[in-house]
Amino acid sequence: MNTPANPASRWPDLAGRIEGETHILPIRVYFEDTDFTGLVYHANFLKFCERGRSDFIRLLGVDHQGLANPKEGEPALFVVRRIEIDYLRPARIDEVLEVVTRCVELGGATLTLAQEVRRGETVLARAKVSVVLVSGSGKPQRLGHLVRGALQRFVN
Amino acid sequence: MNTPANPASRWPDLAGRIEGETHILPIRVYFEDTDFTGLVYHANFLKFCERGRSDFIRLLGVDHQGLANPKEGEPALFVVRRIEIDYLRPARIDEVLEVVTRCVELGGATLTLAQEVRRGETVLARAKVSVVLVSGSGKPQRLGHLVRGALQRFVN
Amino acid sequence: MNTPANPASRWPDLAGRIEGETHILPIRVYFEDTDFTGLVYHANFLKFCERGRSDFIRLLGVDHQGLANPKEGEPALFVVRRIEIDYLRPARIDEVLEVVTRCVELGGATLTLAQEVRRGETVLARAKVSVVLVSGSGKPQRLGHLVRGALQRFVN
Amino acid sequence: MNTPANPASRWPDLAGRIEGETHILPIRVYFEDTDFTGLVYHANFLKFCERGRSDFIRLLGVDHQGLANPKEGEPALFVVRRIEIDYLRPARIDEVLEVVTRCVELGGATLTLAQEVRRGETVLARAKVSVVLVSGSGKPQRLGHLVRGALQRFVN
Repeated sequence: MNTPANPASRWPDLAGRIEGETHILPIRVYFEDTDFTGLVYHANFLKFCERGRSDFIRLLGVDHQGLANPKEGEPALFVVRRIEIDYLRPARIDEVLEVVTRCVELGGATLTLAQEVRRGETVLARAKVSVVLVSGSGKPQRLGHLVRGALQRFVN
Repeated sequence: MNTPANPASRWPDLAGRIEGETHILPIRVYFEDTDFTGLVYHANFLKFCERGRSDFIRLLGVDHQGLANPKEGEPALFVVRRIEIDYLRPARIDEVLEVVTRCVELGGATLTLAQEVRRGETVLARAKVSVVLVSGSGKPQRLGHLVRGALQRFVN
Repeated sequence: MNTPANPASRWPDLAGRIEGETHILPIRVYFEDTDFTGLVYHANFLKFCERGRSDFIRLLGVDHQGLANPKEGEPALFVVRRIEIDYLRPARIDEVLEVVTRCVELGGATLTLAQEVRRGETVLARAKVSVVLVSGSGKPQRLGHLVRGALQRFVN
Repeated sequence: MNTPANPASRWPDLAGRIEGETHILPIRVYFEDTDFTGLVYHANFLKFCERGRSDFIRLLGVDHQGLANPKEGEPALFVVRRIEIDYLRPARIDEVLEVVTRCVELGGATLTLAQEVRRGETVLARAKVSVVLVSGSGKPQRLGHLVRGALQRFVN
């Protein structure tokens, strides 16, 4: 098998898609996501949401390696400050879910996102997540031009 | 090595302790709990809280196997309905944390808990978690006599 | 946003692809996969491999819900019996990896797979995994016609 | 509640115990450890083993923070090189397991451990794990005096 040097180019949808003001990431439910009740373990919905946030900013041109090892300026990373999540319906093994992410607030260092995990048109979980951009030493940093410019147009 | 048939008896604190109105569970931070930022991954605080809740009801005489395979009545299990969590300070590899759990509301089928993850006297995360007792088919069930009786005295 | 009833149809590559005798599944490395060393946590390579196996049999027409709730015959599930895994090189946040899966042995109830986790042409981990099809009560089951027929052509 | 500054002192068995030549760590099976089959997810046995290894070296006076931030010399960390694991019997929610760890080989930079996950006297999984001490840049490092001295007496 002849694999290209950059596997990302072979999988166009791997980071999901931006449609209008939202980002949509497909998620397959695997063994690792479920628990003995037969349903997806509640904390794993937070993992799904985090994947959605990471791929949203990735499609905007920002990634975690780039933030942590910037060409100039201080290293930075996103840290979660607060989550509210309502679990409305369960998910099960083999299902394909979609994480739908939307920016609802863009502060100096803080970003608030509304996220839903859906199966088709059914909303399974609804979350509001606040993240902060901090420096390596933990100090809040102003969201850089790159991040701010990229996200600005998505804030309602 | 001569291991007794019931390992639980060898580890008296494994399910933590009830002190006054709260349950306290020690948690060691391992590799699996951290992420590349060097800190504990945010979703893993929810795992710590779930361990605290499970061991709290365990010390009250209720466990998940017993609920799922009752001697009489319908099988039941606890499902998380809503979580609010504030992340105040980070945790790191090797640290010993404590999950402190307290019942704040006991409804017909719903139980609301206030939980904190602490390192010594420092609160790292503070959560409010609502769980519902449901039957195998997903219908809310009245919290049985056992659960209710055991928890009643812990509700403020 | 107008989401179709079946999200799987919107994401054609979500279960990877079969190319010749191998199945290839792309994996993005997220926060959840890494640990404080900055690298992917070793146990998470086993999760990646499990996703590869699940999607391989999925593309052959077999899924875990179908095995667990068959139209006829006994419920069944795949259980891991043995793993050998060599960790050759590390993986990091944001990277796109590929899980490459190949059947190497097909016994009465046992299936042995050779799996690699690669980044481009670099092999990061190499595993040999034996799984057994068991009934709900844990008894090994003959690999049904469906599974056997589907897998037969992939055995070297 | 009056919590002491060092929570570790309140939980004497949190890192398990060394008995003769083996280290024994108790593990409670929680929701997070199980999957939809009702059993502990296979990759989580590797997490249990990692906890056992970490607590073994902890009781010998070595921890990951100390290795990563040494008072003198280069930062170092343990990396897993190879695992062989046989899954013999399943584990279930609520159970108390024990991870039993023993050094079987101590090379220049490599350490090989035999580990078992047991429930009472029943062995559920048996693993052979090779780890290497590497510097921050990934180069194998000689196991320092501290580690070597501490581990020497445990090698059969």
